[in-house]
Amino acid sequence: MHTIEEYQEFIQSAINKELVQREPKELYEPIDYTLMMGGKRLRPLLTLLTCDIFDGDIHQAIYPALGLETFHNFTLLHDDIMDQAPIRRGYPTVYKKWNANRAILSGDTMMVMAYDFILQSPKDLLFDIFTVFNRVGKEVCEGQQYDMNFETESKVTLDEYLKMIHLKTAVLLGGSMQVGAIIARTSADNIQLIYDFGESVGMVFQLQDDLLDAFGNEDVFGKKNGGDIRTNKKTFLYLKALELASPAQQKELIELYSIQSENDEQKVARVLEIFQELNIENETKRLMDCYYDKGFKILEKIDLDENKKRVLVKLANSLMKRAN
Amino acid sequence: MHTIEEYQEFIQSAINKELVQREPKELYEPIDYTLMMGGKRLRPLLTLLTCDIFDGDIHQAIYPALGLETFHNFTLLHDDIMDQAPIRRGYPTVYKKWNANRAILSGDTMMVMAYDFILQSPKDLLFDIFTVFNRVGKEVCEGQQYDMNFETESKVTLDEYLKMIHLKTAVLLGGSMQVGAIIARTSADNIQLIYDFGESVGMVFQLQDDLLDAFGNEDVFGKKNGGDIRTNKKTFLYLKALELASPAQQKELIELYSIQSENDEQKVARVLEIFQELNIENETKRLMDCYYDKGFKILEKIDLDENKKRVLVKLANSLMKRAN
Repeated sequence: MHTIEEYQEFIQSAINKELVQREPKELYEPIDYTLMMGGKRLRPLLTLLTCDIFDGDIHQAIYPALGLETFHNFTLLHDDIMDQAPIRRGYPTVYKKWNANRAILSGDTMMVMAYDFILQSPKDLLFDIFTVFNRVGKEVCEGQQYDMNFETESKVTLDEYLKMIHLKTAVLLGGSMQVGAIIARTSADNIQLIYDFGESVGMVFQLQDDLLDAFGNEDVFGKKNGGDIRTNKKTFLYLKALELASPAQQKELIELYSIQSENDEQKVARVLEIFQELNIENETKRLMDCYYDKGFKILEKIDLDENKKRVLVKLANSLMKRAN
Repeated sequence: MHTIEEYQEFIQSAINKELVQREPKELYEPIDYTLMMGGKRLRPLLTLLTCDIFDGDIHQAIYPALGLETFHNFTLLHDDIMDQAPIRRGYPTVYKKWNANRAILSGDTMMVMAYDFILQSPKDLLFDIFTVFNRVGKEVCEGQQYDMNFETESKVTLDEYLKMIHLKTAVLLGGSMQVGAIIARTSADNIQLIYDFGESVGMVFQLQDDLLDAFGNEDVFGKKNGGDIRTNKKTFLYLKALELASPAQQKELIELYSIQSENDEQKVARVLEIFQELNIENETKRLMDCYYDKGFKILEKIDLDENKKRVLVKLANSLMKRAN
């Protein structure tokens, strides 16, 4: 087994090898910029870790892992155009730094690159890996469409929201683990179970993200609290609050969410206050615990040494910012 | 061997099977709309015909062929956003009918669908087919970037233009034939030669397209003559005209190409007049003949019955609107 830092080094060094001068530079500049931006590299990390845990040869998993990371970055690049997001990971988004056309086309090219990285999987596993990748790829697009739909829909249910984050986030985390397990050539049962585990962890991860966006410490996470509130994003927190709110609170929340200014600090403060009145932080944590427990139960069924399972628990905990 | 109409029926019936209700409809509606729009289905036709000519099982080639068609349609969908094109094949473009976000995301999904169709190739050929597809996919994006660059570059050389259409159009036609040949399991030499042949035919095809845009009969092709001239597109015709023009004609051409109105009939008429003064139609046909002859020489080297070669010649001729 390797350390998290070692996996990250493997990934970074594979990325560095790709950053060579290519023409036309107008196309490849935004791609290199995006790949260099960093981020947590969570998806390739999951692929390498899973491959390692099932005693696979992680060198066979590096390029497929890079494919998953490149795919993820491609979706961010296009999402930023659709959401008109100016900043990503502290840098101007491609769409802002250059323009929408460059962002569309360099995103398209990244998608082909992602497939090209995945093509460097062991040949006899190509069909299985592409099957996972295509399914997940389509689901991520479906999730993004639901997310966009929610912007204009006045009624969004909690179930619809959970389905959306499942598609947009959880399936790719599950798929990243699944690809690692396929490359390790573990049993079909293990491959399915580790996908399910990753999916549950993915739900925890996204709910945690929603929570941090509202209540995260600004210094630690480098962005202003309440970004989702500023853009009137219907997150779990907001939808749960609507569900639990008194008629008066409901009315106020809906009114606050009709304000279009992103710099209305009073609005942010008041929404957060209502969230606190309704104990939304605890409600979210309770749901996170449900997914966490679900993941834990799946883990029990996986045919794997206890010490390897502990690595997965540690990982899930670190994503939930729990004590290990 | 089958007839062209039979190949087209195979493709259409495979497409029809895909047009089932899927959710979210906001995502799949523009995809079905695009796939239903029709068009010549040239790329899948080339795949099936090539597979057939090399005695392959064309049923194995139908889904890979559909993958190439879906990829091509995805590029059109995104190109229409980038070019702000309102009409495609007589219908409003996705970007106009819905909006840019829907066009971006449904295009992305079509790309995944394209890969999913190609995944239905014979398993032992997946690596070879994806290798072709990824290379071509990247080159098509590069071609589109060069095409966009030309819009703002004052100096574009003829060589640069030919490189651009090579990447944007010819490689995909070559690749479509190559995939058919791979599925037919013909020799490595034949696979390379048929790609080269398709590439040459692709150059003829694109130059023919440029020519028809300027001089095509409006009734037959259903669009106004001079579309490229209206949008100041630096085609082979324009660049060749600049090369052959007197200083006065050069100055006039550059001035005419600075007019931004798309409805300036006087401008179109005057540019066409200059093209005629400089014999640009013949110049273009001369270059088309060069690529045609190149394709013919490649064809001679292919290990294939003469009657099969005649089918390919007939196809190339039909693309050039020559008499057979």
